[in-house]
Amino acid sequence: MKKKILVDMDGVLVDVYTTFFKLHEQETGQRLNLKDIAGLLEEEAFINQRKWVSTPGFFRDLPVIPGSRKALQRLNDLYKITVVSLATEFPYCLTDKQLWLHDNFPFITWQQIVFCGNKNVIKADIMIDDHFKNLDHFKGKTILFTQPHNILIRDSRHIRVNSWAEIEKLLLPV
Amino acid sequence: MKKKILVDMDGVLVDVYTTFFKLHEQETGQRLNLKDIAGLLEEEAFINQRKWVSTPGFFRDLPVIPGSRKALQRLNDLYKITVVSLATEFPYCLTDKQLWLHDNFPFITWQQIVFCGNKNVIKADIMIDDHFKNLDHFKGKTILFTQPHNILIRDSRHIRVNSWAEIEKLLLPV
Repeated sequence: MKKKILVDMDGVLVDVYTTFFKLHEQETGQRLNLKDIAGLLEEEAFINQRKWVSTPGFFRDLPVIPGSRKALQRLNDLYKITVVSLATEFPYCLTDKQLWLHDNFPFITWQQIVFCGNKNVIKADIMIDDHFKNLDHFKGKTILFTQPHNILIRDSRHIRVNSWAEIEKLLLPV
Repeated sequence: MKKKILVDMDGVLVDVYTTFFKLHEQETGQRLNLKDIAGLLEEEAFINQRKWVSTPGFFRDLPVIPGSRKALQRLNDLYKITVVSLATEFPYCLTDKQLWLHDNFPFITWQQIVFCGNKNVIKADIMIDDHFKNLDHFKGKTILFTQPHNILIRDSRHIRVNSWAEIEKLLLPV
């Protein structure tokens, strides 16, 4: 039986940071770089982040994380993939997120999508995520996708990867 | 530890049929009653059903199933409740469904909501649902909420209830 993988959206499939940097500079005049925000959660790094993610349309046109489309398509043949996004805190992002997935990952069907407010209720064998709050409570194998907010934390419980190429090496046959 | 209950939306918290009957009569001139549609799935009973549920705004103002608010509020004190809706087939319903929940069940927090395309990935102890496709694969205790589409099926695997008062009797202390 195929193993089940939960794949996070923001910070794993969706590049939110490029847009966060751009909007932050537009709205505050301050140009930040990765070093400035290392170790800070998104809402700590960008003062207007919660306003942006609450705005209808924000999640509609964000860039795709490099390499994720090709890798996820290959994984989708060998595993049971579910894309899971912690999204119910911001009701207006829900439809945007789903339409974004349809546009950018058309091989992921609507049956493979979950929007929730707590990932603890979802069961699977492997979880790929950039947040400890999701990975720490997961029972299976956990893969931590490097993002600025988690980059300073050393943690042996999860396998850290810095790119989708590294995920391919971990989960796909040579 | 509190037991976990998954509570379906349409047909369990949301009264979809009153509106289906009304729209069907408006659009076709045909007045249907419960007997006419017994045993038929919603999309079989109402020729325009898939058009309606795909339309932005449809899920925003539907009536609440009688007794569900009071009962769910009591259950929410004694159990870990997650409201789970099979909703990702229709991207435009997602935001509407969440706003409806906020309006009508304000004690259900965003952390307690799941929108998905397949309920098999959600784990819990008890499931309340009106569809066999969801109940049949669930590992825990299953409660079938009577609706016209399931009313003709005799099935001993699930506990059939005809109202929220019956759910209260089953799950709440006397």
